[in-house]
Amino acid sequence: MSEHESADSGDDDQELGITKSKEYETGEWYAEVVKKAGLANYAPEGMSGFIITRPRGYALWERLQGFLDAKFKDTGVQNAYFPLFIPESYLEAEKDIVEGFDPEVAWVTHGGHDELEERLAVRPTSESIITPYISQWVRSHRDLPLRVNQWCSVVRWEATETKPFFRTKEFLWQEGHTAHADRDGAWDETMTRLDQYESVYEDFLAIPVLRGQKPDHDKFPGADTTTTVEALMPDGKSVQGGTSHYLGTSFAEAFDITYSDEDEAERHAHTTSWGLSWRALGALIMTHSDDQGLVLPPTVAPTQVAIVPIWQEDTKDEVLGYAEGVAEELEEAGIRVELDDRDTRNPGFKFNEHELNGIPVRFEIGPYEVEDDEVTVVHRPDGEQSTVDREGIAETTREHLDEVYAKLYAAAEENLEGEVREADSRDEILGTIGQHGGYVKAPWCGDEECEDEIKDQIAAEIVMVPFEEDDDRHGTDHDDTCAVCDDDATRTAYFAKSY
Amino acid sequence: MSEHESADSGDDDQELGITKSKEYETGEWYAEVVKKAGLANYAPEGMSGFIITRPRGYALWERLQGFLDAKFKDTGVQNAYFPLFIPESYLEAEKDIVEGFDPEVAWVTHGGHDELEERLAVRPTSESIITPYISQWVRSHRDLPLRVNQWCSVVRWEATETKPFFRTKEFLWQEGHTAHADRDGAWDETMTRLDQYESVYEDFLAIPVLRGQKPDHDKFPGADTTTTVEALMPDGKSVQGGTSHYLGTSFAEAFDITYSDEDEAERHAHTTSWGLSWRALGALIMTHSDDQGLVLPPTVAPTQVAIVPIWQEDTKDEVLGYAEGVAEELEEAGIRVELDDRDTRNPGFKFNEHELNGIPVRFEIGPYEVEDDEVTVVHRPDGEQSTVDREGIAETTREHLDEVYAKLYAAAEENLEGEVREADSRDEILGTIGQHGGYVKAPWCGDEECEDEIKDQIAAEIVMVPFEEDDDRHGTDHDDTCAVCDDDATRTAYFAKSY
Ligand SMILES: [Zn+2]
Ligand SMILES: [Zn+2]
Repeated sequence: MSEHESADSGDDDQELGITKSKEYETGEWYAEVVKKAGLANYAPEGMSGFIITRPRGYALWERLQGFLDAKFKDTGVQNAYFPLFIPESYLEAEKDIVEGFDPEVAWVTHGGHDELEERLAVRPTSESIITPYISQWVRSHRDLPLRVNQWCSVVRWEATETKPFFRTKEFLWQEGHTAHADRDGAWDETMTRLDQYESVYEDFLAIPVLRGQKPDHDKFPGADTTTTVEALMPDGKSVQGGTSHYLGTSFAEAFDITYSDEDEAERHAHTTSWGLSWRALGALIMTHSDDQGLVLPPTVAPTQVAIVPIWQEDTKDEVLGYAEGVAEELEEAGIRVELDDRDTRNPGFKFNEHELNGIPVRFEIGPYEVEDDEVTVVHRPDGEQSTVDREGIAETTREHLDEVYAKLYAAAEENLEGEVREADSRDEILGTIGQHGGYVKAPWCGDEECEDEIKDQIAAEIVMVPFEEDDDRHGTDHDDTCAVCDDDATRTAYFAKSY
Repeated sequence: MSEHESADSGDDDQELGITKSKEYETGEWYAEVVKKAGLANYAPEGMSGFIITRPRGYALWERLQGFLDAKFKDTGVQNAYFPLFIPESYLEAEKDIVEGFDPEVAWVTHGGHDELEERLAVRPTSESIITPYISQWVRSHRDLPLRVNQWCSVVRWEATETKPFFRTKEFLWQEGHTAHADRDGAWDETMTRLDQYESVYEDFLAIPVLRGQKPDHDKFPGADTTTTVEALMPDGKSVQGGTSHYLGTSFAEAFDITYSDEDEAERHAHTTSWGLSWRALGALIMTHSDDQGLVLPPTVAPTQVAIVPIWQEDTKDEVLGYAEGVAEELEEAGIRVELDDRDTRNPGFKFNEHELNGIPVRFEIGPYEVEDDEVTVVHRPDGEQSTVDREGIAETTREHLDEVYAKLYAAAEENLEGEVREADSRDEILGTIGQHGGYVKAPWCGDEECEDEIKDQIAAEIVMVPFEEDDDRHGTDHDDTCAVCDDDATRTAYFAKSY
């Protein structure tokens, strides 16, 4: 902090506190937290739909990247980088199998002063350029499985209201693309990535998720199966947290990905693709934060512990010395700690600022703590306060960080469990979602029309269907009928409004 | 390697070896190494000037990023992310102080089916969007220094011949932008980043560099001083390895970056910017590689040691078991090791492949090594072979990796030292560069016209002028005259052809 020290106390132009209520004005509250915690700014005029990701926001993405990328590398994924642009004819080629993204593509038409012969799309997703190269690189079964991933930004020109990290024209994500010899290999891959996405939410962001697949009519175009993890937001809407697609052989057929098997026969590969975007940060901010500002689990927090020394002139040296010793010990133990020794700010101001910025644990150290060889520990999510021994502080801190994580997870889990309700009729689905939001589980025949009846009335849709093995309605040996049409129910559907 | 094991030996479509000569066909040789070592492919038709960065190439960038980003973070830099696009009016605003990039900008004119009201440039560099935000974020001297960096790709629509990592329309880089209270702070920052760039080359890529500043007429537009590190390539041309600009107050004045100082007076900040691109990878590949393929220093190599077990049917188990033990021990010590236990390839094929791919050290382990408790170690750059004890193998390996680094650095240093020549006249400059390439040091008056006389004749320019404190021609108390015009020489100029 030394660079910010000074004798002058100055005023901040902006008010520090959050003024909106999470419960009653969720949208405005979210925007205020993003701005005041310094996560992002809106882009300037002429750039509506774009955001500026400030260091405190980008640090969250970097930490998420670190967590997920390590898992990718442990499971055979290699990173690569493909061009930002895709020729229009490439997107057209993909149209044979998928509908394409062109209503929402940004087009480059000029390079310097010259008009291009062929328009270039700013990538809305990269399969149409990655898949042809996978096709070149795969010759024999010895080249399989082949896995490439890229971390990049993509652009989709949607004309919806901007919501930082949830809805922006440009967003950061990763997209992985793999080829395998057979269905089993590709299906295992699809599940490995879904498991890793689940782990991002449950083990890193402290957000429990539901896992399953999308209804057939809502799959990724061209996919055999689209799998998803879904997270419930405090406003009762579901966020699609990451998707992993088993593409069957459709992309391999369209782009000619073949390999010679052990008997020298030519076969089509089975492919997958999977992506997770910075929407995960939106879910993170939305789930845990409160009317005091940002709340972060210690896993993702750039600073895990803020130490606030509290001194009078005559106790300053001993208090600061003691606090510095604590900070060093935590730092050596690999804990991300910040000693806030600014003497231009009083402790109350610092408490508020660290709360606004979501630092998970605060240490307060004054003359009493020094005298008793102790540290006062405060948890950000609930303000719980305790006094702990100075000795073994690094180990104790770890326990407190784990406790904070557990508290956040438990609160999110309790919310989720209370927000999954059952319904047996069309009216009950509509009434339950209308009144409570959240998820409504209902027996479903599998027809899109039955979803449409709900969607038309209340803008809720089937966000997820549990996997066959998790769904005791799968198969025929049960008596349930579809909540909407009364035909035989073959699956359980989770209806919800969604982001 | 287990996923590549199989009973079948198949043929590769492509020839494994390098066919061009580094000495006589440097350009073709470079292109062949990039392709055959699997670093990059050219992009498809309609996308000339773009490349596909394959995993083995991208891994080099990831490692460089890790090295440099850690240095940035240790010295107060925070990463952020700004939009991919910049409104045309923003680039126009920058024109007041700089010439601008628009002859080489890619323009987005349409979003979906609609023409945009204002064209958007795909960022050729981001100061015109970053600087206005720095202006917003800086209020008081307590906000300074402010440092943001972004790792991203930029696009410059230059119609030159493509050379992977050296000349591509899209390239990966980092750009840092900082604001400081005064000249000293900003100048220190400029030097800190130049030191870090020097360290990337000298401590990580095993390439010695020359450091200095660009002539005034060749500065970054709007800069007070442009500093550079220059690396000599084997074809005798200089590569600008990274630049760090002290911008004075010109950008602060144009974009209104002011702060209130300790006496509440409003002052303009002093700013800097600095960037390093994947051209560093081009220099890496070009400098060390040879007619057998890629050569990498162990620092940047994704795999540092390849272990090739050599067995007959009756010795297979013991040889493989021994090799696995060695691999495990290296891995536990944090050495990046690959055990090449494919039984579809003979050892000679494996040797060639690992040489082509630039793995710095090879271990050969056969029955004799097992019997004698030894390992045969081969250095990639010069084929030096030795036999070492199995005991303490991790420590021994580190020593060998350090030796390989030292060999590469020494070779590059020897080349550089032999390629700096002196000249005292226009004809001597022309003759020396014409005959030898490399750098020619000459006394210079400081006039652009004197550089033009050289440039017009032989396409060599002043790539670097040593800093004043390193240049005994600086000042007036010496008798040298400019090699070109015979006016007083005030500086030493390094002439060279450049990339
Ligand atoms: Zn139905
Ligand atoms: Zn002259």
